[in-house]
Amino acid sequence: MENMDRTVFSLLVDNTSGVLGRIAGMFSRRGYNIDSLTVGVTADPRYSRMTVVAMASDDIIEQIENQLRKQEDVREIKKLGPGDSVCRELLMIKIRARAQDRQDVVSTADIFRAKIVDVADDSLIIELTGNQAKLEAFISLLADYEILEIARTGLTGLTRGSDNVTYLE
Amino acid sequence: MENMDRTVFSLLVDNTSGVLGRIAGMFSRRGYNIDSLTVGVTADPRYSRMTVVAMASDDIIEQIENQLRKQEDVREIKKLGPGDSVCRELLMIKIRARAQDRQDVVSTADIFRAKIVDVADDSLIIELTGNQAKLEAFISLLADYEILEIARTGLTGLTRGSDNVTYLE
Repeated sequence: MENMDRTVFSLLVDNTSGVLGRIAGMFSRRGYNIDSLTVGVTADPRYSRMTVVAMASDDIIEQIENQLRKQEDVREIKKLGPGDSVCRELLMIKIRARAQDRQDVVSTADIFRAKIVDVADDSLIIELTGNQAKLEAFISLLADYEILEIARTGLTGLTRGSDNVTYLE
Repeated sequence: MENMDRTVFSLLVDNTSGVLGRIAGMFSRRGYNIDSLTVGVTADPRYSRMTVVAMASDDIIEQIENQLRKQEDVREIKKLGPGDSVCRELLMIKIRARAQDRQDVVSTADIFRAKIVDVADDSLIIELTGNQAKLEAFISLLADYEILEIARTGLTGLTRGSDNVTYLE
């Protein structure tokens, strides 16, 4: 079986209203499987930074990169490798926890440096950032509790150091 | 001039490969302006949670809600209001800072409880979560430094308490 790794593409795209639909549409039209996609403003209002995580074989990753290069909205393409970048995701998780369970949940959260952001009579909302392995480990540790809701942003990231190399053009 | 507020839609959608393209495509086809869109897995592998932030008049927000209800992939629609929900975004920012500036940057980061996640000879990467106002305030405070790169995930959030009301169907 071929090796299927997560590849993280960091794209600088034009900040236009249709750009998200066009990029996401290209992925779905061609049947490429996206693990996550995040988009946000940058310091320059003309551009947005989009981070796309794709789980695919090397052949497909090369195809995706070629398709991205053809998109008129895409100004810059980088791959964020595990060694040369810092990638993070934000998780918010709401679990059922009555007063007697609360201390135990708070201790688990402390180990992960997670923050309790809401406390209700019988539930807690916890916020945690980290790489995907850390978030998965945290969710597993909370398996004894009833998970009421999860919201995750998908991965975003930056290259380490000040080498902002542009690979396109 | 009509009031233009940010409206945060929290959607439970089918976890299929094309869903992101279809929802993002609906917004761009109809010319609705999206502030951000995030999508992530939930505790139930059949569904993903998508958070869409739209800046529009009340009329347009109602139109968007009606269009979302017509999407076959959309299982549940909630609006996350400021009082009844906790919304957060993840920011990663890389700034130029040589050794002599580093302590000053670290002090600013500490005030916001931001984390330094990478240190290089002449740059730092800082990670911060918060609502949009907090992230904007932090970016403004760093205006004295050269911002090399910014990556933001867009907003995600959960309703407070354990009232997981479904408004659809």
